Amino acid sequence: MSRLIERLRGGLPDEALVTDPDVTAGYAHDHASFCPAGTPAVVVLPRTVEQVRHVMRTATELRVPVVPQGGRSGLSGAANATDGCIVLSLVRMDRILEIDPVERTAVVEPGVINAVLSRAVAEKGLYYPPDPSSWEMCTIGGNIGTGAGGLCCVKYGVTAEYVLGLDVVLTDGRLLRTGRSTAKGVAGYDLTRLFVGSEGSLGIVVRAVLALKPHPPRQLVLAAEFPSAAAAGDAVCRIMADGHTPALLELMDRTTLRAVNKLANMGLPESTEALLLAGFDTPDPAADLAAVAALCAAAGATEVVPASDAAESELLLKARRLAIHALESIRSATMIDDVCVPRARLADMLEGTAAVAAKHDLVIGVCAHAGDGNTHPVVCFDPRDADESRRALASFDEIMALGLELGGTITGEHGVGVLKKEWLAREIGPVGLELQRGIKELFDPLGLLNPGKLF
Amino acid sequence: MSRLIERLRGGLPDEALVTDPDVTAGYAHDHASFCPAGTPAVVVLPRTVEQVRHVMRTATELRVPVVPQGGRSGLSGAANATDGCIVLSLVRMDRILEIDPVERTAVVEPGVINAVLSRAVAEKGLYYPPDPSSWEMCTIGGNIGTGAGGLCCVKYGVTAEYVLGLDVVLTDGRLLRTGRSTAKGVAGYDLTRLFVGSEGSLGIVVRAVLALKPHPPRQLVLAAEFPSAAAAGDAVCRIMADGHTPALLELMDRTTLRAVNKLANMGLPESTEALLLAGFDTPDPAADLAAVAALCAAAGATEVVPASDAAESELLLKARRLAIHALESIRSATMIDDVCVPRARLADMLEGTAAVAAKHDLVIGVCAHAGDGNTHPVVCFDPRDADESRRALASFDEIMALGLELGGTITGEHGVGVLKKEWLAREIGPVGLELQRGIKELFDPLGLLNPGKLF
Repeated sequence: MSRLIERLRGGLPDEALVTDPDVTAGYAHDHASFCPAGTPAVVVLPRTVEQVRHVMRTATELRVPVVPQGGRSGLSGAANATDGCIVLSLVRMDRILEIDPVERTAVVEPGVINAVLSRAVAEKGLYYPPDPSSWEMCTIGGNIGTGAGGLCCVKYGVTAEYVLGLDVVLTDGRLLRTGRSTAKGVAGYDLTRLFVGSEGSLGIVVRAVLALKPHPPRQLVLAAEFPSAAAAGDAVCRIMADGHTPALLELMDRTTLRAVNKLANMGLPESTEALLLAGFDTPDPAADLAAVAALCAAAGATEVVPASDAAESELLLKARRLAIHALESIRSATMIDDVCVPRARLADMLEGTAAVAAKHDLVIGVCAHAGDGNTHPVVCFDPRDADESRRALASFDEIMALGLELGGTITGEHGVGVLKKEWLAREIGPVGLELQRGIKELFDPLGLLNPGKLF
Repeated sequence: MSRLIERLRGGLPDEALVTDPDVTAGYAHDHASFCPAGTPAVVVLPRTVEQVRHVMRTATELRVPVVPQGGRSGLSGAANATDGCIVLSLVRMDRILEIDPVERTAVVEPGVINAVLSRAVAEKGLYYPPDPSSWEMCTIGGNIGTGAGGLCCVKYGVTAEYVLGLDVVLTDGRLLRTGRSTAKGVAGYDLTRLFVGSEGSLGIVVRAVLALKPHPPRQLVLAAEFPSAAAAGDAVCRIMADGHTPALLELMDRTTLRAVNKLANMGLPESTEALLLAGFDTPDPAADLAAVAALCAAAGATEVVPASDAAESELLLKARRLAIHALESIRSATMIDDVCVPRARLADMLEGTAAVAAKHDLVIGVCAHAGDGNTHPVVCFDPRDADESRRALASFDEIMALGLELGGTITGEHGVGVLKKEWLAREIGPVGLELQRGIKELFDPLGLLNPGKLF
């Protein structure tokens, strides 16, 4: 038994330690393509804060890198193991400690599944908005690590807006409490927000105080067909400029529509270039849909179909929620990009992505959180085909370059991880990078926390 | 001419430099009581980013401390000069560079007055929510520095939620761009949020990208009278637990009501212990007011008066906006506290504050952003009376201690500054303090930026 395992055993029950290589291999990587993953020395599955502190103290003492993991549904390789590391899986710390309708807060452990929390708070008339596509498998800790988004963001914002306070185990095992449990608070630097999106590189989140909203009425959704990306982009701009705040404003291109039909036989219109879905959870959603329908028509929509009830709306949303999965079934592998541009540049982004696909002779389907300008071009390829793989990688990079050129960011909600770390430096520049590295060094002077990610 | 002035002149026009001690004395402090203020060596009023960079390069070269200032309406001494410092007043950098209804963003310089921005965006159908009481004189740069709030926060959140990206001149004169112009973005650590609330101690904000909302309908406001703090606190809890989201939910105690009447003869009910104002900017505010009226009655309100129109509502809001000013006119000086507690502890906070006032034989009026649990106990005293001053200081501290005991924070929106720096350590503890100091050192290794504040 190695010294590492022996030490870990000193503060962990047997069931919390996995060393069988066949099993630990299953924890080697997240959902990203093209990201190298090493072989972990051990997978640790703690149930208590004290156990996490023991793991970090041990790691610091023995200078062993630690890779924290949630549901491993990430798309950037941020949860990938490195050789000889401790994989610290937080999935067993999955208790909802408190849901308080007066404070509109929930206190949770990091391993709580997003959808489990969403359903639990809904039972008390409350709403936890962040809803990444992986919501049935991703954890709140992972959402905090990546700064996850979803369909809700155009109205409700991203994970960062919902994290009020954190308990964090630092790299040396000390416990830090950040933020507050109150609605407001500005005492000192905002360390809470520093941890959101930090991809496990600054500390291990072991408890989070989350803000909740009252549960909104069920959405009513409208579908609008457009003959071009330019027309769909124009509609998005008109909707936002006219002062509407849809609860979702989603776009699927023709490739995506075909893929969804093929997967689920949903009867989506395959002749259209772009389908826009606009949802409203307002007191009078039919009125909002009527106004948005007129704006879509003015932007050149060829067909506008407001759902007549919640069931019809749910069907349209189901199509959107299937989009990524459907695109994944086109070829054997995908790279999912996550470029966010100003809304006014959405059409340029869509057209530019189509040009990249044509240039490299690849299928690239795009679904987008159009209301945020956040596109997910999905590059489809066969990894056994070396040339196609090379072209896929090149396309992926060209799409990010295009996003930056259009005044956007390389990642709206998926994070940097391994996949985009060279691009992070391009986006934030040398001064920002130096300060970010300084923060990393401040929190993790030995460089043990999720090494090789972000930078 | 001192070496400092000579060097500053090298990159600044004459009109940007003020050395006359009679004039510079006017820049020595902000609006806080009991906070020491030194004598600045010079006041600099730059108009361009390049001029700010020159100031910071000069300060670094000559090791001169720099105290950044906005409208100096702060209540914690965060803008107070230190002896021999450069006061860096950003008030002349007051251009609104862009207002974009499609992106729902504004790009501004730091010296833009909050109310000026609010009116400018309103003309385009947009809304910049943060509305501190000082909104006619405070600057966006100052709002970012303190993490300012206001009446709007119960529905719309605080300044931090509206800052998407920043240009910051670092202590050595380098320019850092943080964040993004897009609706979403998670590339790297969130440096933007680190600057919000940092009280000018990490860098000089010279440009901000702010998020805007569509302009809401005008508010309809209800006033409810309560026979006790407990009943008013209960009403707040019922309103929030029942899923309402008022655009404001404010409380004034009897002392405040009397002070407002005395100042402005407004006919507010002086026999009541607490007056609650609830405002709604929803599509059907009358329906919301009716629901809230019923909840107030159930909580024991003795009188509930919904405003019948916007003019009546505006009158009620005017009373609230006068509250702090009215309390200031009771004695010759005030200390304004800013303790935020969980909503369920609001009544305890109000009763505890009354007990502190009785114990020290002082007038302490309380107005509160009740929907956030954010109370502003205003300790009234005569600074020429040494014993009364001592009791005022003791009360101020006991109120913060009570707030922490109730699970709250020492500052909901005013910041730490000089006034509460010993309390910051108590609130965040040694681990947090060490990391916060580390961040300060990373951004400002020579300790030149706003020294003696926060820590």
